[in-house]
Amino acid sequence: MWLRISCDLAFTIETATPFILMLRPRSGEEQWIEHDEFKIFPNVPIIEFTDGYGNLCQRLVAPLGDFSIQTTSDVQTSEFVDVDLYAPFVEIQNLPNNVLCYLSPSRYCESDRFNDMANTITSGKLPGYQQVFAIEDWLRNTISYIPGSSAYPMSAIEVNKKGSGVCRDLAHLGIALCRSLSIPARMVVGYLHNLKPMDMHAWFEAYVGGRWYVFDATQTGSKGGYVSVGYGLDASDVAIFTQFGPEIEILQQHITVEQIKN
Amino acid sequence: MWLRISCDLAFTIETATPFILMLRPRSGEEQWIEHDEFKIFPNVPIIEFTDGYGNLCQRLVAPLGDFSIQTTSDVQTSEFVDVDLYAPFVEIQNLPNNVLCYLSPSRYCESDRFNDMANTITSGKLPGYQQVFAIEDWLRNTISYIPGSSAYPMSAIEVNKKGSGVCRDLAHLGIALCRSLSIPARMVVGYLHNLKPMDMHAWFEAYVGGRWYVFDATQTGSKGGYVSVGYGLDASDVAIFTQFGPEIEILQQHITVEQIKN
Amino acid sequence: MWLRISCDLAFTIETATPFILMLRPRSGEEQWIEHDEFKIFPNVPIIEFTDGYGNLCQRLVAPLGDFSIQTTSDVQTSEFVDVDLYAPFVEIQNLPNNVLCYLSPSRYCESDRFNDMANTITSGKLPGYQQVFAIEDWLRNTISYIPGSSAYPMSAIEVNKKGSGVCRDLAHLGIALCRSLSIPARMVVGYLHNLKPMDMHAWFEAYVGGRWYVFDATQTGSKGGYVSVGYGLDASDVAIFTQFGPEIEILQQHITVEQIKN
Amino acid sequence: MWLRISCDLAFTIETATPFILMLRPRSGEEQWIEHDEFKIFPNVPIIEFTDGYGNLCQRLVAPLGDFSIQTTSDVQTSEFVDVDLYAPFVEIQNLPNNVLCYLSPSRYCESDRFNDMANTITSGKLPGYQQVFAIEDWLRNTISYIPGSSAYPMSAIEVNKKGSGVCRDLAHLGIALCRSLSIPARMVVGYLHNLKPMDMHAWFEAYVGGRWYVFDATQTGSKGGYVSVGYGLDASDVAIFTQFGPEIEILQQHITVEQIKN
Repeated sequence: MWLRISCDLAFTIETATPFILMLRPRSGEEQWIEHDEFKIFPNVPIIEFTDGYGNLCQRLVAPLGDFSIQTTSDVQTSEFVDVDLYAPFVEIQNLPNNVLCYLSPSRYCESDRFNDMANTITSGKLPGYQQVFAIEDWLRNTISYIPGSSAYPMSAIEVNKKGSGVCRDLAHLGIALCRSLSIPARMVVGYLHNLKPMDMHAWFEAYVGGRWYVFDATQTGSKGGYVSVGYGLDASDVAIFTQFGPEIEILQQHITVEQIKN
Repeated sequence: MWLRISCDLAFTIETATPFILMLRPRSGEEQWIEHDEFKIFPNVPIIEFTDGYGNLCQRLVAPLGDFSIQTTSDVQTSEFVDVDLYAPFVEIQNLPNNVLCYLSPSRYCESDRFNDMANTITSGKLPGYQQVFAIEDWLRNTISYIPGSSAYPMSAIEVNKKGSGVCRDLAHLGIALCRSLSIPARMVVGYLHNLKPMDMHAWFEAYVGGRWYVFDATQTGSKGGYVSVGYGLDASDVAIFTQFGPEIEILQQHITVEQIKN
Repeated sequence: MWLRISCDLAFTIETATPFILMLRPRSGEEQWIEHDEFKIFPNVPIIEFTDGYGNLCQRLVAPLGDFSIQTTSDVQTSEFVDVDLYAPFVEIQNLPNNVLCYLSPSRYCESDRFNDMANTITSGKLPGYQQVFAIEDWLRNTISYIPGSSAYPMSAIEVNKKGSGVCRDLAHLGIALCRSLSIPARMVVGYLHNLKPMDMHAWFEAYVGGRWYVFDATQTGSKGGYVSVGYGLDASDVAIFTQFGPEIEILQQHITVEQIKN
Repeated sequence: MWLRISCDLAFTIETATPFILMLRPRSGEEQWIEHDEFKIFPNVPIIEFTDGYGNLCQRLVAPLGDFSIQTTSDVQTSEFVDVDLYAPFVEIQNLPNNVLCYLSPSRYCESDRFNDMANTITSGKLPGYQQVFAIEDWLRNTISYIPGSSAYPMSAIEVNKKGSGVCRDLAHLGIALCRSLSIPARMVVGYLHNLKPMDMHAWFEAYVGGRWYVFDATQTGSKGGYVSVGYGLDASDVAIFTQFGPEIEILQQHITVEQIKN
């Protein structure tokens, strides 16, 4: 399916402020960017680079006054996410080298503390996809998904304690549970068609059966319409903007996703 | 300055044909892509990846029948290329690791055979920028630039013998001469504002004074308006399309570059 | 100075266990490995790869029974660590792309929670080296260094609360404080000459004045004798061995560092 | 099988000379380095880095006077090279991204000029391993292998014309023929057990059936005992030493390979 996604951000800047942005989706195995626009006002120098996870990032120093960013892309992505209940657990020794980093605990995914809980949740499940499926299902039933409920990322331990969170928080707990079972898991930030309320979205992917599969405890069924913008260990790697120096109020964050052709 | 560049390619395909394309300019230190469009007809699966030189490449299998590609981008680039007559030669031991590969001979730049000639051309020049400047000047005066004169890349030895060539051929000889003096040099393919006749263009960059500088023996002065699409050792790394299997006639290759704002 | 370092590890394995090791120091800007030995008993298949931080890692599946690893290297390293009290803070926009990841919070360095504390500790200090120097000094005076006191890594928050820790724990708190001031900081694991009691060691590096500097709150003065084995965001990236599956008791971990020539 | 390999190089240096060395074999899928020694006399500063093909390289400036390098390693490698007559040709669209560069023509492998010849040599063969096997066989029967016959690398065109060459030259022609059939092929430099006369050696690998296979037209049968030191497009990427500035006479190059255990 074809989606047109857009993100408008507006700030009032009181002191020249360095930003790192992650707002340009890239073409890869799972999606194709046919059209892409990335505008900043005013038009200060901006440099793009690729981070250690392969994400496109943009660096700039926002000047005093009104500052805004407008991005939009036309993206071809899948109408349904792939599901394979029989995708097996991959033994550590058979994982590709570049997947191993997704087994480590990270800032918001303290996987070193979740082994017992993960074993309980996945008890009796076939190692691999079905374990992750059980984790996703458990999250959906146990952690209340409350969009807009937390401004700052919560770690898996905090989410588990609180029992509710935004999409990012549910993903953190899902990732921590997967990694505690030696299943590589990574955070994805991006867009989702028909997300309600519309906003940037976050979900996670788990590596089973020799590839990455999408999981999203905030949704049901296997409908697709995902557009990825960034991959990483957790929210600390995939902020759509990171701002340095005194904190800046964001005036506007307006996201749209519409289907444009099929 | 702001340029809108476009490339339209059309083929008739008689047997399903794998292609690797290099047609998406990327944002970096020297240019910023504000708008980008990449369309293929018919819309077959296409995958983008990054090659060993950091270029964006697209893979697809062109199906039977008419097949075309249309790309366009709005790019901010410099109105003038940087010039620094006193940028010094960088001693080998002080070159960054990732620049060293641009010292090696390559398919079309047999730098191992040009040391005497390069010494003659640059005799008496300050080591560094002025050597490359002398090479560029020598090329401009010695090798006739005849757009459209060669369908296939010629190597530096062949260009030197023939005494004429297209932009790519002059770049090959320039690169070979630089490398023979232990100055790193690389091929760039892309667009140039006001190129006559308009077409894809090729030029070279040399590493002196701690950074890359643009050189182009087909032009005079230091006017800019360059949009880079690919970097590599020579033409074998930066073809805008590489096609495998039985050779395919290209029906159309239409290039435009226009200034859109300043 | 020349050091001969060695590490002997011995395990009893009760079920075939995948390991990822990080036990081979590599040659780089700061040290040169003249001699290197890496032996495993029994001699099962072992594959070496490079992780995302450039560290050499070794993968294997330890078989049932006694399993041991013996590594030794002769390394040339500095007798003193570099100190530059006037190395300035590097503005975010001037940091190299590949250093930016060392600004993010990580599993054991919750830098997003330490800004106020870091400002207090470094109050009145010149931005850059002197800030890190003040942090190192504060750690030395405030957090008791008690070798062997913690088996598992503590995070910066936990270390700060407990008021004591092993080398790794002090490094975590130092890193979190640096990053909270937008100073890139990274964990290093390796060997240190004359460490008492002798063991593997951990310290941190901060990026000021355009390069990395060594800091170690467990030591005084600027004596060197450091041999690096791994770099990363924190302890979760630089374990000398990571073992998957049921936990395994380590029978022996014997480390030596001796000076061999000067 | 276990091999102890060594390389001793000695030079007389008349003006301080930058060198890039490629003399440290690395552990990977195919070989394991248990012991490694790399000594230089006198002991000038030396820095190791990894090139774009993953090879370990060493940079130094050789000082005036006698300069020598001694390396030795104990390596576990296969007693036989893998052979699979039914490893199929991999369609371009199915090749991994990082293998595509080995399809391009390069300095010494002008694959763009060998398609007709390769078709003739492999006429009637099953696409894939058997084509490469036919090329290797044709080389063995057609190009005389004369160790020591050429000081400088010859390109595939030159080797084909001359009808004889050293190991490196035969590899160049083999690689050019493979690539002209869209089979990825790469140059390997290293050591070979029982090579006569003993010296550094060069061979090539072709990518068929989803992996790299060893081919060596200078040998017969499928005996192994290969130790790889460097991989690249051709000899210009894998020189064991590259020396800049006025040419230096090599006083000694002494290579040994002995079996040490099984």
